[in-house]
Amino acid sequence: MSRGGARFQPRFRIDAAVLQCYALKVHKFPVGVLGASGYAGRELCSLVLNHPLLELAFASANSQAGQKAHIAGQEIDFIHNDESVLPDAALVFSALPHGASSEWVERAAASGAKVVDLSSDLRPGNGHANGVPYGLTELARETVAPAPVVSNPGCYPTAILLALAPLVKGGYALPGATIFISAASGVTGAGYSARPDLMFAEVAEDFRAYSVANEHRHLLEMRAELALLGADNDLLFVPHLLPVARGILATITVPLTEQIDDPLAIWQDAYSSEPFIEITRETPTLRDVVRRNVVRIGCTVAKGIRQPTLIVIAAIDNLVKGAAGQAVQNANIMLGIDETMGLPA
Amino acid sequence: MSRGGARFQPRFRIDAAVLQCYALKVHKFPVGVLGASGYAGRELCSLVLNHPLLELAFASANSQAGQKAHIAGQEIDFIHNDESVLPDAALVFSALPHGASSEWVERAAASGAKVVDLSSDLRPGNGHANGVPYGLTELARETVAPAPVVSNPGCYPTAILLALAPLVKGGYALPGATIFISAASGVTGAGYSARPDLMFAEVAEDFRAYSVANEHRHLLEMRAELALLGADNDLLFVPHLLPVARGILATITVPLTEQIDDPLAIWQDAYSSEPFIEITRETPTLRDVVRRNVVRIGCTVAKGIRQPTLIVIAAIDNLVKGAAGQAVQNANIMLGIDETMGLPA
Amino acid sequence: MSRGGARFQPRFRIDAAVLQCYALKVHKFPVGVLGASGYAGRELCSLVLNHPLLELAFASANSQAGQKAHIAGQEIDFIHNDESVLPDAALVFSALPHGASSEWVERAAASGAKVVDLSSDLRPGNGHANGVPYGLTELARETVAPAPVVSNPGCYPTAILLALAPLVKGGYALPGATIFISAASGVTGAGYSARPDLMFAEVAEDFRAYSVANEHRHLLEMRAELALLGADNDLLFVPHLLPVARGILATITVPLTEQIDDPLAIWQDAYSSEPFIEITRETPTLRDVVRRNVVRIGCTVAKGIRQPTLIVIAAIDNLVKGAAGQAVQNANIMLGIDETMGLPA
Amino acid sequence: MSRGGARFQPRFRIDAAVLQCYALKVHKFPVGVLGASGYAGRELCSLVLNHPLLELAFASANSQAGQKAHIAGQEIDFIHNDESVLPDAALVFSALPHGASSEWVERAAASGAKVVDLSSDLRPGNGHANGVPYGLTELARETVAPAPVVSNPGCYPTAILLALAPLVKGGYALPGATIFISAASGVTGAGYSARPDLMFAEVAEDFRAYSVANEHRHLLEMRAELALLGADNDLLFVPHLLPVARGILATITVPLTEQIDDPLAIWQDAYSSEPFIEITRETPTLRDVVRRNVVRIGCTVAKGIRQPTLIVIAAIDNLVKGAAGQAVQNANIMLGIDETMGLPA
Repeated sequence: MSRGGARFQPRFRIDAAVLQCYALKVHKFPVGVLGASGYAGRELCSLVLNHPLLELAFASANSQAGQKAHIAGQEIDFIHNDESVLPDAALVFSALPHGASSEWVERAAASGAKVVDLSSDLRPGNGHANGVPYGLTELARETVAPAPVVSNPGCYPTAILLALAPLVKGGYALPGATIFISAASGVTGAGYSARPDLMFAEVAEDFRAYSVANEHRHLLEMRAELALLGADNDLLFVPHLLPVARGILATITVPLTEQIDDPLAIWQDAYSSEPFIEITRETPTLRDVVRRNVVRIGCTVAKGIRQPTLIVIAAIDNLVKGAAGQAVQNANIMLGIDETMGLPA
Repeated sequence: MSRGGARFQPRFRIDAAVLQCYALKVHKFPVGVLGASGYAGRELCSLVLNHPLLELAFASANSQAGQKAHIAGQEIDFIHNDESVLPDAALVFSALPHGASSEWVERAAASGAKVVDLSSDLRPGNGHANGVPYGLTELARETVAPAPVVSNPGCYPTAILLALAPLVKGGYALPGATIFISAASGVTGAGYSARPDLMFAEVAEDFRAYSVANEHRHLLEMRAELALLGADNDLLFVPHLLPVARGILATITVPLTEQIDDPLAIWQDAYSSEPFIEITRETPTLRDVVRRNVVRIGCTVAKGIRQPTLIVIAAIDNLVKGAAGQAVQNANIMLGIDETMGLPA
Repeated sequence: MSRGGARFQPRFRIDAAVLQCYALKVHKFPVGVLGASGYAGRELCSLVLNHPLLELAFASANSQAGQKAHIAGQEIDFIHNDESVLPDAALVFSALPHGASSEWVERAAASGAKVVDLSSDLRPGNGHANGVPYGLTELARETVAPAPVVSNPGCYPTAILLALAPLVKGGYALPGATIFISAASGVTGAGYSARPDLMFAEVAEDFRAYSVANEHRHLLEMRAELALLGADNDLLFVPHLLPVARGILATITVPLTEQIDDPLAIWQDAYSSEPFIEITRETPTLRDVVRRNVVRIGCTVAKGIRQPTLIVIAAIDNLVKGAAGQAVQNANIMLGIDETMGLPA
Repeated sequence: MSRGGARFQPRFRIDAAVLQCYALKVHKFPVGVLGASGYAGRELCSLVLNHPLLELAFASANSQAGQKAHIAGQEIDFIHNDESVLPDAALVFSALPHGASSEWVERAAASGAKVVDLSSDLRPGNGHANGVPYGLTELARETVAPAPVVSNPGCYPTAILLALAPLVKGGYALPGATIFISAASGVTGAGYSARPDLMFAEVAEDFRAYSVANEHRHLLEMRAELALLGADNDLLFVPHLLPVARGILATITVPLTEQIDDPLAIWQDAYSSEPFIEITRETPTLRDVVRRNVVRIGCTVAKGIRQPTLIVIAAIDNLVKGAAGQAVQNANIMLGIDETMGLPA
């Protein structure tokens, strides 16, 4: 038989299989999004609309209630935050602003829905001794799975904690030393607010540091989590604003107790079976991770200095792995479905 | 039964359905990509890797042969253009440069593979009376389906011809009049070539027209196709280079035989069942279409001028609907599978 | 004498000349800026601060009154709009918003200051039969020079009218025909207002048309001026928003009464002695003109169409030649000093 | 007398003064630029063309010899590197590539011209014990003034050394500690070379670190200079590539011997009379410095960590203060004219 003939045999078998797949009436989990008009809220809606096992029960956005939004090629009706729709959802994502979120998390939980809160309201270090798991998924699956409510990490902490965890857990970081983190984020990290300093003509061709006195609010959750992992290190964190829409790159220097020959193996070992963590000998860049639910981590030994030091670089998409993607990853676990489902890796 | 209880019932039914879906051993069509290192070539690889019924048999890139590329989270080996691998593919995409493509199209066809040629070599007006269908999919499904070789349209013509076809076919355009097209493209439209004028510091904060004497090579295929559709109009086409990576926006003025009250209905009627054409009362923008296999078309009646005139605006992603996406759309039809499969709408 | 010796002779003569220049106590004209916190207002302040014969008497900005601004390396105190300071200025620039400007123009004129109004309030076609010259400088020097008040043209009209004037005055444009103008502007053209659609993450990687029904307010002044120049042509004007901070590029098609062999000569003749108009055989681009007080004009005969047609391309910096620069150019004339002084060509 | 009348008196006095200024036949120093087609070379030509006391004797660019360049609104003829033109210049700038520059520096010096070399060939740490002053102007005026040849610093070192010098000289930095520098540069810092990774579509929306193993070649001159200033600190330097055309921002952490109450005073004291150094309580940004010959320095005490540490941020335009501007600043001193002349502050 000719090769050409062989090539065209599969077609018919395929079509049958596909028809069968498509014919299955898959029941989907209804999920709701509170605070759907911001960048994280829209990304959540987009992920839910493209998710094979989730469907959008409602999307609330007080400032745009009554308007239609076009997301992922579909038309969505934004409603007011409304207690009466909460029971329509098996799970509710809250992308409401910090401060406004926690009361809606309570209402949604009271309605019987599981909840993933993307605000900082319930994160460690924010004053709530609340028993709500901190949903840094790769480090918290066991507590996330049965939890009625999960607090989704901030964007910077997601990149930085996943990068630092193997070092800290392995005892490589020099006790008492300062870990310096110079990080840069795209402007969607500042949320969807019409601030003069975030207008195109102000951000394009610029680059600036902010919260430079080591007072960014994400330090609270980073310190709390690193302490839990056993770190005895101070964090010095200087974030910068990049003229890009999406993405975070964190450049981290970690003083070591002693020189390490093949440092990358530390991460390769720690994360060998992780679907959303990429360990690379190349230098991670924003391009590698944008629109994907991954953190990409690289590492180099600093040459020419006396103190043994590692330079660790981590990159994420702040709206995906740093917000909505990780929220869906947590939701998948909470709903008992495949953790990777509906997530662009 | 409580609503909360009801909400958690579906889970088990879903899991069963999903397992069944995943368990089906779907046979995929092996496809090859010639010229895989350019922007269109990489987009093709990415679409193939994410396609439920296609798999990548090979990817050639002479300039990067032997190197590994990271596309869509996977590692690809680029090989030399090589006749011996052509029989491994049921279908071959050629994204080779203009002039270099046609000989490989012949070789691939001779090997028994179906072929979609993304170069201009076989397009109408380029001197080949070749019988190869011009794969502007929405206007050419019947000739594309049985064809062994299809010539994929250029990026500008895809947007412009889909926008003009209903007007021309309906006889609305004023005979003898000039249709003026002011179009703008992101820099990936110029291909992946390290030209000094395409470097970041030369393109950022700039905007420029090119081929301004009405001599862009895409005019050949646009004139040929519009003549086939019955147009008696001249085209005046001025393309511009935008400081964006992706996207084409075409702003088209069409003198009319007489005033039209509800012009949008012309497109709504012509394209009512098209999955990849969006007709909108809003003004189409690049953001609406980037990374999607759609053309988005809007239309307005020009006010305050004597000659009845329509302003038609069409937007596409030059690498998706304007190149790789439409190529996969054609390939889906040629392989007898669902036209929309694997394409981001 | 050695050449090296010759080279070092001039130094001493130079120093003497320079010292003499610097020693002259040049008296400067005090000028005020109303509405100084917007993009045009800041550009005005910057030009005044760097002008050899102007000095900044005051800068008002109601929304930022009491704050200090850093412009051109200097610190400026923004005050409230205040009638009492008007007499401090020999000339007042009003960059107040449309609608709010005309009353302050009256007050400033009543105080004895000459006035250049950058708003649209007093422009032709805006309903005021006011006798105020329309300060398109190159076409209006004689009326600008003695005028107590001058209305500064809009940014689009500056580029478009200077490009069209020689054609229209020469009778080249086909009577009754539509002149189509596809233009694109950087975001500073929309003013310094914190609109959600002008935020970085909304504008970057996008391109969009606006006011597409031929209803942009700049049409009023363009129609009025072209009528005065003797045009019998309709204007079809579609502006677009570019992801750049500054610059306007207008691509204009003009149907002709007959074919023209060397069209560029029309502009070269008309503008042969103009210091701020550049006629070029290359295609003008934004890069050529940004931060300069020039309009750059190129022209090509359209090939392959029946109707003889010119494609004219004009580029300006919307904040310089399209606003603050032209305002200073007019002010120089009104104050009797060299027209080019203090202007970056 | 009316105020209005008073306001218009100065005009006539001014005009007289201005006429006198303009009438002086100022003799200018002829200067040449070797390697004029790159970004630094073009910036040099632009500064020279706008300089009141310099004139361009020649501009060489082997790759574009025979072509005309348009710089600062003027047309320049690029010639080949040519020994015979060297005697035409009182001073020669070499912006030739590293490695190719030193031989032309020798030739120019032999011709009797003074020379400013912008390449790294003669910088400290590059293997030449050459006696050529390192022209970090603010720290080197006394050696620059009489020197026949000066080596112009690299862009990163200019920002970083000016920021660190007062701390090091004052003995504030903790001996033995590592100073960590996370810096980011616009793409013109990589020079005018058509590298695929510097194309618009590769750089836009990206951010990446490079030379991450602490091996950037600028470390050589930074280490050498800091040692001269008395530092006993290691440098850990991670540069990043920004999606902007121009500008460098360096974020520097300096461990201290003890806490400092008002650290900014250190810089204010050290640089109180410097025309091109700005000390600020705000955080310096690229926007503050682009197209200006300044370094802008800010400083904050790190809170919440045990080791007393300063966060110092410095910003420059890499092409101006980081290259061509500082070269002209040095040239001004070498030619005995005002150091600030012709430089945009």
